[in-house]
Amino acid sequence: MANAPFSTLEEFRGALKAMPEADKAAIDAAGERNGQLTKPPGALGRLEELAIWYAGWRGEAAPKISRPQVVVFAGNHGVAARGVSAFPPEVTEQMVLNFQHGGAAINQLCRTFGAQLDVHALDLTTPTADFTQGPAMSEAEVVSALRTGWNSVDAGADLLVTGEMGIGNTTSAAAIAHALIGGEAEDWVGRGTGVTDEGLALKAQVVNEGLQANPQATQDALQTLRCLGGRELAAMAGAIAAARHHSIPVIIDGFICSAAAATLEKAEAGALDHCVAGHQSAEAAHAAVLKALGKEPLLALGMRLGEGSGAALAIGVLQGAVACHSGMATFAEAGVSDG
Amino acid sequence: MANAPFSTLEEFRGALKAMPEADKAAIDAAGERNGQLTKPPGALGRLEELAIWYAGWRGEAAPKISRPQVVVFAGNHGVAARGVSAFPPEVTEQMVLNFQHGGAAINQLCRTFGAQLDVHALDLTTPTADFTQGPAMSEAEVVSALRTGWNSVDAGADLLVTGEMGIGNTTSAAAIAHALIGGEAEDWVGRGTGVTDEGLALKAQVVNEGLQANPQATQDALQTLRCLGGRELAAMAGAIAAARHHSIPVIIDGFICSAAAATLEKAEAGALDHCVAGHQSAEAAHAAVLKALGKEPLLALGMRLGEGSGAALAIGVLQGAVACHSGMATFAEAGVSDG
Repeated sequence: MANAPFSTLEEFRGALKAMPEADKAAIDAAGERNGQLTKPPGALGRLEELAIWYAGWRGEAAPKISRPQVVVFAGNHGVAARGVSAFPPEVTEQMVLNFQHGGAAINQLCRTFGAQLDVHALDLTTPTADFTQGPAMSEAEVVSALRTGWNSVDAGADLLVTGEMGIGNTTSAAAIAHALIGGEAEDWVGRGTGVTDEGLALKAQVVNEGLQANPQATQDALQTLRCLGGRELAAMAGAIAAARHHSIPVIIDGFICSAAAATLEKAEAGALDHCVAGHQSAEAAHAAVLKALGKEPLLALGMRLGEGSGAALAIGVLQGAVACHSGMATFAEAGVSDG
Repeated sequence: MANAPFSTLEEFRGALKAMPEADKAAIDAAGERNGQLTKPPGALGRLEELAIWYAGWRGEAAPKISRPQVVVFAGNHGVAARGVSAFPPEVTEQMVLNFQHGGAAINQLCRTFGAQLDVHALDLTTPTADFTQGPAMSEAEVVSALRTGWNSVDAGADLLVTGEMGIGNTTSAAAIAHALIGGEAEDWVGRGTGVTDEGLALKAQVVNEGLQANPQATQDALQTLRCLGGRELAAMAGAIAAARHHSIPVIIDGFICSAAAATLEKAEAGALDHCVAGHQSAEAAHAAVLKALGKEPLLALGMRLGEGSGAALAIGVLQGAVACHSGMATFAEAGVSDG
């Protein structure tokens, strides 16, 4: 079992600065291989760059994806008491049971693409503090969630998706995006699981109150995560960092996952170089978060469910890309004229 | 083995008029089921409509995809002698061998998504006639190709992808699109496997010559297919029609497949109701063909390979959609509050 190499937020920051880079020799070898495969140059479009990117992180010219892992974290949010969700907070725990019994969307997607699914419920009976009144988490709480996330990653996995469940967490993600990227609160709040116009205005107000109550959240990205995040957001950040530590490529999910991931990139530029964006959420602000991260989503199918579902669907795209790259014959092997 | 129920082009036209429709009771039952699944309404976005569409064609409220079939047809084109491709015509046969030996992109994608792959080489030693001099195919030739396509479909399959290989066939597809949809030849020609600016101008000229040499091609869509198509395009059309006959949903591939499919829709409105578009090709004119067909592609990853590769990649999306729809628990089953 992995053991997270940090026990304070500053040690986590240090770990982010000590992360491995992609293997340049593997990137070069994969690029050379790509140029010899039986297809016109560039005819596989984005699949080609995806496969080369994946090869770089795995350190192999012709890698395989055989052990994808999906980890879903669940947390409860003090701010849910402000009525920012269309669903009651009990749904977080009910959905954890649904994950455990195999009945949720993410269970079906993991089966479809052969991914291992792990679910971590994070202190559901103790919601984070209402961030309109001060920090959502203490240092000990955020570090605990980061460590849970880090330790959840299977070092033998070769692809990671992180997902979440947490009633109220689009409000937390909106507050994080606002603190990290700027603009107005209204730019970052959306319908979530289905709030009304009135609910939307309330979410914007709550986000503004959150930033006012947490001045340090706009100064430092790890403080943003602590003050405005939730346990499941911190755990996703910890898992994404652990994946980098183990050279495991990551597919980032929707708005909430991307907001959590953005705290890493803001804390340490390049911290998400091992990540691609799986799916552009129907949650309106997601596109702007991805733009800020410089990530072009692989899919855009109007999903807005969470659970890692958009990224899990994109596992198939990455599997296809890597299978083509590593399995196709070269022009020489196949005796095909190369133009 | 299926036996195509037509032996003339007019009998094929008749078969198109006698096709089954989707099962309305299954659509209603699937829609009702969708509303009870453990997710906020609409949160799976396009996956929800895809699953309901699929359920309608399969006649089941909660269907499964267990036998996807990919059929690739290869043909040679007289018009290739005009120099419209960056590759020599021998590549068609070389790539057929590559398919048979498992070395092409489509082989890897079929393995990734568990699809059966069948390859049919169509009289490669006898290219179709150069359509700038008159019809590419006689009635007997186009009917033979339609029949091969029809008979290639496994009646026990539950999803079909049709793909193609044929040096010169983007020029054939451009001529078909121009004849069916209108505009200027320049609107429909593209880089194909990688022609130069000069090659592009030549393709437009060849397309114009093709329409001038075949006045009947702009009068009737099945004549369009005969006069401007190739054997692999006719075979794809035959296979797509057979799938409809067997109530097997189809994922349409890129520019060439879509041009072939468009002849069916133009011959009989609604003939492609059992089809979704898998991937928007980097071949520039593909978007306009899909728009004319009213089909929104599932993926847009810059691919332009043919072989059915874009549609094959989209098998994963449809598998995910149907798995969620048929495998998820309802709110009642999972004991989750539905807001």
